[in-house]
Amino acid sequence: MREIQLGIVGLGTVGFGTLTILAENADSIRKKLGFPLRVKAVCSLDAKSLKFPMSVPVVTEDWRDVVNDPDVDIVAELIGGTTVARSVVDSAIAAGKHVVTANKELVALDGVSIWHAARQRGVTLAMEASVCGGIPIHAVLREGIAGDRVEILFGILNGTSNYILTEIEKHGTPFAQVLAEAQRLGYAEANPAADIEGFDARNKLVLLASLAFGVKAAPSAVATEGISRISPIDFQYAAQLGCTIKLLCSARREGEGLFLSVRPALIPKDTIIASVNGSYNAVWCRGAFGADTFYYGRGAGALPTGVAVTSDIMRLAREIQTSNGERVSPFAYTNVEEIEPQPIGHQKRPWYLRFRITDRPGIIASMAAVLADHEISIDSVLQIPSADKTNLPFVITLETTAESNVRSAVSKMAAFDFMVEPPLALPMEKGL
Amino acid sequence: MREIQLGIVGLGTVGFGTLTILAENADSIRKKLGFPLRVKAVCSLDAKSLKFPMSVPVVTEDWRDVVNDPDVDIVAELIGGTTVARSVVDSAIAAGKHVVTANKELVALDGVSIWHAARQRGVTLAMEASVCGGIPIHAVLREGIAGDRVEILFGILNGTSNYILTEIEKHGTPFAQVLAEAQRLGYAEANPAADIEGFDARNKLVLLASLAFGVKAAPSAVATEGISRISPIDFQYAAQLGCTIKLLCSARREGEGLFLSVRPALIPKDTIIASVNGSYNAVWCRGAFGADTFYYGRGAGALPTGVAVTSDIMRLAREIQTSNGERVSPFAYTNVEEIEPQPIGHQKRPWYLRFRITDRPGIIASMAAVLADHEISIDSVLQIPSADKTNLPFVITLETTAESNVRSAVSKMAAFDFMVEPPLALPMEKGL
Repeated sequence: MREIQLGIVGLGTVGFGTLTILAENADSIRKKLGFPLRVKAVCSLDAKSLKFPMSVPVVTEDWRDVVNDPDVDIVAELIGGTTVARSVVDSAIAAGKHVVTANKELVALDGVSIWHAARQRGVTLAMEASVCGGIPIHAVLREGIAGDRVEILFGILNGTSNYILTEIEKHGTPFAQVLAEAQRLGYAEANPAADIEGFDARNKLVLLASLAFGVKAAPSAVATEGISRISPIDFQYAAQLGCTIKLLCSARREGEGLFLSVRPALIPKDTIIASVNGSYNAVWCRGAFGADTFYYGRGAGALPTGVAVTSDIMRLAREIQTSNGERVSPFAYTNVEEIEPQPIGHQKRPWYLRFRITDRPGIIASMAAVLADHEISIDSVLQIPSADKTNLPFVITLETTAESNVRSAVSKMAAFDFMVEPPLALPMEKGL
Repeated sequence: MREIQLGIVGLGTVGFGTLTILAENADSIRKKLGFPLRVKAVCSLDAKSLKFPMSVPVVTEDWRDVVNDPDVDIVAELIGGTTVARSVVDSAIAAGKHVVTANKELVALDGVSIWHAARQRGVTLAMEASVCGGIPIHAVLREGIAGDRVEILFGILNGTSNYILTEIEKHGTPFAQVLAEAQRLGYAEANPAADIEGFDARNKLVLLASLAFGVKAAPSAVATEGISRISPIDFQYAAQLGCTIKLLCSARREGEGLFLSVRPALIPKDTIIASVNGSYNAVWCRGAFGADTFYYGRGAGALPTGVAVTSDIMRLAREIQTSNGERVSPFAYTNVEEIEPQPIGHQKRPWYLRFRITDRPGIIASMAAVLADHEISIDSVLQIPSADKTNLPFVITLETTAESNVRSAVSKMAAFDFMVEPPLALPMEKGL
């Protein structure tokens, strides 16, 4: 079989990690493929100053030199973002190159139309590295459990926020302090909004939902709530309920529709997903036939993500050798249907409500009256003793209730004059 | 694209599970494939008495009718064993059919030569269901993390033994009693040897080692020890050491060689692999580049295993549509090297030694002298108080030591007259 030639655009963390693996793991890769793979051309704005782990014939600062190189079979787009990256991907496809990308933002936003362009041109799009770098979750959903019908997909898809929640739980340190420390250590970015507000995670959820359910939703249509209001006391109450708290990405089939959300949720401690701590990522699936499966690994990093890129390159190289064109859709389904998620207000869950109040007689009665007005059943009332009667936390858990009903009751309760801050309402995932 | 036609030989648990999924999940399967799949022929000795979930043109008691049906593209061998199953697989390949099998015994024993025959004939062999039915671990190792080089693979590959260990740990019930209860409930077979002595697990380990390392070892060459000597007190001591005990299937690269073993081992409780309880299966990999990943799900069962078979069928159906012949080796590597595992005596681990003794002064001194003679360093000595001085359990943990050295010291210690039973020696896996 002939040698397959590779072009890489972008030699940042992931690009250089990929180059490192292609060099240092060349022997194992060759033994798996049975034919040679060669890096023909790379593009980087600081290519001149980099030391390469192998000899590369073409080193350029202009991505067009890579995309238009007639020898190049596969282009790996590893620069990120949605502007230049988009041009690189579009031009590579137009030039008849197969494309590997690690760009979650681009594929969550517009992957389906990029894929359609690739099909039209008879080339393949691969994107394993775009979600959960170290976990081969695309391979799993696209082929490994293709025979199943996923009913629920849960993800812990953002390492930074999971690290922060783990630290709050472990040390009882307030959110702001943990975040500042994480920023100091380089685990969180100077502008942490994408991580802590759930925007990064929801791009990933939208992508995984495509693979698991064959649908495309706009990231902005996903009900999203960050972790900044989670405090150590919430972990204490959660523990009383046998739970921990995770920033849970959730896609749940219900009838013909799909509920999509990214937000903190209570998870029973004795489930495997509760044991995902620190900066790790994980995906948990409940299939209609295959029951529960769970996948865990590094979410990011030069080498874990580089493994995903390299594995994609190997897959495309094999497909080039044995066939012309696409063998399996990068989105698992041959047609990805554009959908609006189900209105999240219709989703029924048990709920955790945490209040901070100025204590006085009659508070429980007032709250219970509001819940009764909304026909919501109380499951339990929890109060950890505290000396501070002007900022007293307590918790009410609710039986399974539609979210819109809970939100309406909570906004009523927020207006009580004894309320120190707006109530915190988190869904609870039981029965996992 | 044309319709792909399927023949199924064997309609036991897995066969009927597969048929159920092909019928009930037909819509989702069709949406993923983009072309029709049809069950053309099935063979079962009690085919006449079965009620099928779809109409099947050919229902027979002779597997040759399936294998020789000119319409059939893919044959699924789901009868198990190594005699008739072997004939079915060989004949199907000879007839130019692609083959899906769920038969771990057959592929662990002789999968490589079956695969070579398939290559020669230009057809493909798929075997996702042969290990960890519900976990798509073949897809992961073959393609998902193909770019990595696996350094260590740990598996919990036998649900029955994991269920028994979990029950001993949870309730403090002795092994024999838990086994009897498991047999009564149908979780363990009347002849439980394959499960509790590790023979089932080692077939699976041999197969996974092929995929992870590109080598084939004889199952009989794997150092294998069952769980029947694990008692509740071992879990108490393990807990003092921050550990639990699992029947651990281990494949560990060391230099050019590979250590393979199946036996109870201590695993730190704060690792993800320690949280695999009950009848679940799991695989944990440490890659040279991708760091640690972990895969978890049902090990058996009609529908989880049926998902694996169905996913394999879908993969082959796609390969038939887009190409001729094999795209990727079922063993991940294009060449599987026959190896002898490294002699397990050379493997260095920390050790847990548990003794039952008749108490008297000088015992620790005698034991310590034997260890000193073997130049083995003691890490800790643990003793949980007990009233029974004639059957007193206590534990010595050792620093990292070659297994042959530990075995030699242990056999010396077994000869002491105060020893109530032979010492139990378990490796400890730290630093996961």
